[in-house]
This record gives sequence, C-alpha cells and structure tokens, in this order.
Amino acid sequence: MKIFALLITLSLASITSATTVDRIIATALADSNAYLRLGEMCDVVGSRLNGSPGMTRAIAWTLEKMLEDGLIDVRAEKVMVPHWVRGEEKAHVVLPWERPLQILGLGGSVGTPFGGITADALVVADFEELEARADEAEGRIVVFATQWEGYGKTVQYRGHGAKEAARHGAVACLVRSVTNNSLDTTHTGVMRYAAPEDSIPRIPAAAITVEDSELLLRQARRGLPIRIHMKMGARMLDDAPSANVIGEVRGSEKPEEIVLVSGHLDSWDPGCGAHDDGAGVVLAMEVARQLLKLDRPPRRTVRVVLWADEEMTQQGGLAYLNAHQDELPRHVAAMESDSGGYPPAGFSVTADSLIIDKVRTLAAPLAELDADHIREGWSGVDIRNIVETGVPGIGHRVHNDSYFDIHHSAADTFDKVDAEAMAQNVAAMTALIYIIADAEESLRD
Amino acid sequence: MKIFALLITLSLASITSATTVDRIIATALADSNAYLRLGEMCDVVGSRLNGSPGMTRAIAWTLEKMLEDGLIDVRAEKVMVPHWVRGEEKAHVVLPWERPLQILGLGGSVGTPFGGITADALVVADFEELEARADEAEGRIVVFATQWEGYGKTVQYRGHGAKEAARHGAVACLVRSVTNNSLDTTHTGVMRYAAPEDSIPRIPAAAITVEDSELLLRQARRGLPIRIHMKMGARMLDDAPSANVIGEVRGSEKPEEIVLVSGHLDSWDPGCGAHDDGAGVVLAMEVARQLLKLDRPPRRTVRVVLWADEEMTQQGGLAYLNAHQDELPRHVAAMESDSGGYPPAGFSVTADSLIIDKVRTLAAPLAELDADHIREGWSGVDIRNIVETGVPGIGHRVHNDSYFDIHHSAADTFDKVDAEAMAQNVAAMTALIYIIADAEESLRD
Repeated sequence: MKIFALLITLSLASITSATTVDRIIATALADSNAYLRLGEMCDVVGSRLNGSPGMTRAIAWTLEKMLEDGLIDVRAEKVMVPHWVRGEEKAHVVLPWERPLQILGLGGSVGTPFGGITADALVVADFEELEARADEAEGRIVVFATQWEGYGKTVQYRGHGAKEAARHGAVACLVRSVTNNSLDTTHTGVMRYAAPEDSIPRIPAAAITVEDSELLLRQARRGLPIRIHMKMGARMLDDAPSANVIGEVRGSEKPEEIVLVSGHLDSWDPGCGAHDDGAGVVLAMEVARQLLKLDRPPRRTVRVVLWADEEMTQQGGLAYLNAHQDELPRHVAAMESDSGGYPPAGFSVTADSLIIDKVRTLAAPLAELDADHIREGWSGVDIRNIVETGVPGIGHRVHNDSYFDIHHSAADTFDKVDAEAMAQNVAAMTALIYIIADAEESLRD
Repeated sequence: MKIFALLITLSLASITSATTVDRIIATALADSNAYLRLGEMCDVVGSRLNGSPGMTRAIAWTLEKMLEDGLIDVRAEKVMVPHWVRGEEKAHVVLPWERPLQILGLGGSVGTPFGGITADALVVADFEELEARADEAEGRIVVFATQWEGYGKTVQYRGHGAKEAARHGAVACLVRSVTNNSLDTTHTGVMRYAAPEDSIPRIPAAAITVEDSELLLRQARRGLPIRIHMKMGARMLDDAPSANVIGEVRGSEKPEEIVLVSGHLDSWDPGCGAHDDGAGVVLAMEVARQLLKLDRPPRRTVRVVLWADEEMTQQGGLAYLNAHQDELPRHVAAMESDSGGYPPAGFSVTADSLIIDKVRTLAAPLAELDADHIREGWSGVDIRNIVETGVPGIGHRVHNDSYFDIHHSAADTFDKVDAEAMAQNVAAMTALIYIIADAEESLRD
C-alpha cells in the first residue's frame, strides 16, 4: 500500500515536471559548453597533481567559472593533502643489451639514491610466482609482468607490488602498466607501502609499458640475463594546502536540503586528466549552469563539489565529512562523476533497495538518453564517507570500454573526448539531479 | 593466339604443380616457426639501427639461422651506411606552464647545442600556414601540428618540415608524429635537409605525440604564449660498415636463374622493429626454409636477401645493384615484404602489364589464403633499383590498417604480431615464390 502510494506520488511528480525535464534534456543536448570548457581546462589549467601549480590554477579557474555561471556561496574549502613530487625519472636496460626503458613512477613512491639503482631483475608473472621464487628476490629489481585481468584485479600489483617485493629483499619494483592496450604507454597511480610497524623497507616503484613488460618476461623465460638501471627523484614533501571547490544553486522551496553533484579536481600529472576527472569537474559545474537557465530553480539546493586529493588519499572527501557533519542528514543525495566523459550508461546507486527503486522510477525520463539504467553498486570514492552516514550515493556510469587505455597516462587528453557524449552526460546528470532536487518527497523519506 | 597459348601453358603448369603448392600451403599453415623466430629476433637481437650493436647482432643472428636452415652460399655482403646516433633527448614546455614534453628525434637530424634550445613556438597546421606566417618564424621553434591525411601526404612534414622551417629562420622543428592513433606515442623516421648549395641551415628536428601536437595547436589558437626547451644529442658519424645478408636455395634445373625474396634487416631504434621489418626478414628466411622441406627444390634458385639501410638511404639496395649487375638479367622476379606481418592481402607488381597478368594467373592457387589479389603498383624501396633494370618487382601486401599506429615507434613490438597471420604470410609468399621459381617458362620471357 505504501509502495502503491509512492508510485502514484512519483507518477504525478513525473507528469508535473515532465515538460521541465524534457526541456532540460533538449537544452543540454544543444549546448556544447561542457565540452568546450573541458578543452579550456586542459589548455589553460593542465594536469592537477596534489600540491602542484596546476592544482592551484584549477582551484582559481573553477572558482572563476562558478562565479561567471551565477552560482552562490562559491568558495574553496581548505584541505591539507599529501604532497608527492615525481622528480626526474630515467631508466635503461643494461642486459641482455643496452636500451632505454620508459618508466613512470607510481604515486607515493620513494626515489632511488641519487646515482640510481642498477640490479639484476627478477621477472615474475604474478604474486604466486614471486612467492614461489622468493629466495631469488634479494637485491633484485622485481618486475611484475602481470597480464591484464580487469582493473580491479590487476591494479593490486600497482598498489601492493612494491611492498610484496620489498618483503623478500627486492631493491626496487617495476609494474606492468594497468591497461590492456598500449602504444608504448605508461600509466601511473597510487601505491601503498606497508605500515611502519611491519618493518618492510620502502623501495622505489614505477610502471613500465605493456610492451616492455612482455619483452622482459619473454627474455626472462628464455633465461637471458636481465639487468636494469633506474633513477627516480620522487619524494614526499610536507602536506600541502589544497581545496574542495564548492558552489550552489539555492533551492526555491527547501534550500536547507542539499543534492550534491561532484567530480574530483585533482589528477595525475601526465596528460591533462581530461577524462579523469576533468570530465566530472566540468559536468558537475555544468549541471548547476543548466539549472540556472530554468525559470524556477529546483525546490532543493544543488551543491557542486569539486574534490581535492581523490587520486592519493581522498582528504577532500574526509574534510567535507568533518566540516559538514551537521548538514549531512539534510543531504538528500550525492552524485559523483568519475568514470570519464564517455557516452552515458546510467547510474549506480549505493543505498537501501527501496531508495534504489525510487531512483529507478525517477530516472525513467532519461530513457531517451539511454541513461535510465539504474543498478545497485559503487557510487564514488570521494562521496564514500558521506554515503556511509546514510546519504544515498549515485555514481555516474558511462560506456568507458577504452577508459583504461588512457587512465592515469599522458594519453588522457582532450583529443580523446567526444563533444556529443559530453552533452549527453550533461543532459542525463542535470535531468536526474533536477528530478531529485525538485521532487516533492525527499529521496531519503 | 600467343596469350591463349600462354594460358594453356600456365594451366598445365598449374595442374602439374597443384599438389606441391597445396602441400606448401598446408605445411606452412601448420608451422609456427616464422612467428616464434620473430619473437626470438625481438628478444635476443632487438632494434637494428644503422651502425648499432643491434644491427651487428642481427647480421650474425640471421647468418646463423640461414646456416641452420640449410641455405647455401650464406654470406654478408658489405654495405657502407650512414651512421646516425640519437644521443640524449629531453624537452619541456616552459609556457604557458611548465610540463615535460616527449620528443623523439627524426633520423638524420642534427642535435641542439649542448645547453639545448629555448625558444617561443610558432605552431602551424600545415606548410600553407607556415608560408602565410613566414615572418613570424625567425628565431622560433616551428611546430607542425599537421592533421593525419594518410601516410603519403602527412609524412612530407617529417621529411621536409625542418628544411621549410629553417628556410624562414626557425631554430628547431617539431612535427606531429605521422599516425592517426596515439596513446602518448612518438614516431620517428628519416628527415632530409636541403642541399648544401641552398644555404638553408640544418636545424634539429623531432617528433612529438598527437596529444601534444593537438594541445599546442589549441593553445596557440587561444593566443597563449608557448615556449619550449629542447635538447638533442643527435649527430651523424662517419659511415659505418653494415651488410646485406644473403643465402640461397639452389635451383634444381636452372640454378643460374634467380627469384629473389627479401625484407630489410635494419630498423628504427625504438621498439624492436617487429613489423618493420622483422616480419619481412623472418618471412623471407622462412620461404627458403619451407622450400628446403620439398622433395625437390624449385627449378630456379631462390635467393633470400635481407637488406641493409632501408630506413635511411637504401644503400643496401644500391650495393646489391652494383655488385650483381651481371646477374640482373637472370633475376626472374624480386619480392620484398615490408608492410608488416599482418594477414595477407595479395601482391602488388611493378612490371609490364603482361607480366602482371601472368603473376595473377600464377597466384590463383593462393585464393584459399585470400592472397591471390594481384594489382599493379609499388613493390618495395630496396628492390627499386633492380626493378628499374627490368626485374619484375613483387610487393607483399597485407591488411595493415593499424600499421601506422606502431610504425617507427616503441610500440612496434612482438606483442603486436599475430601467429596465425604470420603462418598465412609464409604460406602465401612461399607458394608464389615456388610457383614462379618452378614455372617452366620464366616470368620475364
């Protein structure tokens, strides 16, 4: 009975706002601002590593754009973030014959001694082989020549390879880039050392290309001697100030209730972080810009949040949790876009199944965008903390089959972004945020 | 009447040798030696730039393989080749903001002064824009941010960009890599300076990625200041000794008549030159190895030639022309494979149209391999000289749509090679070489 009443309410809400939603979608599809703005961000801001000049530019640039667009309460909320610097990187293969070796240090890695490290390599296919050959690791550079088995599984080698290699006495660690397609491409990303109490040394860790990983593995299998020289200037500095950049569209009836829409402002340093997560940043900003075109803003406040430090330790999400504790019960939903600006595929919701059903009903008008597919699942790492307090989390899903070709690499650039897909994402995200923000009944009721 | 007689002759020849050709094809398709050998070449030899240790290893390795296979008259015929060395390369963008810039020097380029060159960039879309803005080039680094319009047209910028930029006073030249697909990939290749009598200075020239080319062009169009620092240690040394590696399968009836089958042994230095032209090298060797499995060798001698110096100035082809002048009238045909080891697509013949028709008839048994498509056209740069003396030239064609993704880059590696395609190429090339070498009537008669 309760569900029946709910469905009627939702249907009525649907009918009354149908013309507005249709207008939102039509307007967004005809507007190339998100695409053009992402281009501008790539061109005038660039990559946005924690503590870098690029991140500073990004904060200023997004504040300026939000003000231009007419958002209110535009501000940068300070967040202290880990400040890792890459420094100079250089490597070459000494044996079986001398050749340059492209390396890209993993985020958080220590550097080598100034003169670099020269050592024989132990090339292994996976953690199992390392364990089986643990007595060969001492003093070696361990190379994880791990085949791609999807991001979730393969990324374990980037995250934990150095720790596992160091546990057995390795002096450095090289990891096959976490991708399945390569044209001589290195991919970085965060890595983690063991806790200090585990007494496992911190050794330098870098990614190599798929091509070099395959070559080194084949050479090792042939019994050829493999010796590598690598030099990395990486180091961790004191924490640096960064910020969550925030702006709002004030709700017309229930301004104290908040629908959050977000992307993360930081990125890795190679490339421009165009898809990861420049796309999410401009999409979140664009949702507000599109809503401000309406005759009447939605009932609830829509808050745009551009997170600091997604890539390393998610201090942005944590800082928001701490600074906005008292508001969290009034957060009706939180959306994060962090899967790239590819064509929309729907949304993934972290919430009770009744709420997921509600979102599914509310998203029905997105069918023309093929964005009405709602499934239960992960919604985003930056909103995770507030989602754990009970805020329904909504992850923006896209058809990103080629995402890991460019993810965390110098190939994550604006030329890989499609204008039409960006406009479709604006339409889908704006429509769903509007519907949730304007619904008579809160998603959480 | 003559043509009719010819057709009858060919039909009879076809029938008599049909079982042998079918056996050649079946045997080749079941044999993975070419694929495995290409892997070994990539692993134990590596890239093969003129004058490099890799080229020296390649000469020794191919001589050894030919002897192992049972070829006769196996020898390295000395060829003096240009000896260009890359040296250290490093660049970064200074303005609009500091970032690393991946560069890959073009073959033949001079280096920069030891301290490098720092200069404002003039970014142009094409030669026309450079001409229109010639008065802005003085003292600048000219960046050719040229869109891909197919290899033949786009490669003009790699070949002649430096000369055209220097003509207007530029101090260095950067060229968008000659490819249409990039994942942060640089592609080298040969470039040419103006003749000394033209008094155009020789300026350093390097390739940049598609991503950086697009970014720099967009930034320039926005009016942003662009300043680049680049350092290249490239220089041309005295000519170095290299060799055409040659071996033969002695003909059983007309050993003095020669059917030549070839690929080029040298490569660019990034990657392994797996497709360009490691594939052609192992395929040419494999044709001989397969023929040696027959109960009776073909009537004519099959000569395998692995050319020196295709990539820079084709001294290998020239040296062969000069050393084998008296034999050329007895060269019945010359085949070159230099389009990669992709699935076979047929052959392209440089000869009189009557001969092309003959080849088309002879190639009919290759239909099952989809390799019976014979067209008039270019057959190969290394055999060009002897083809100009009247030897029918046969170019091995493949379905290489993705060739320029990896061409002359560090992504031209064994992981891009398909075992089945290699076996199909062995079958197609061996079958056609056998048919020509064993035909009663010479292709040139």
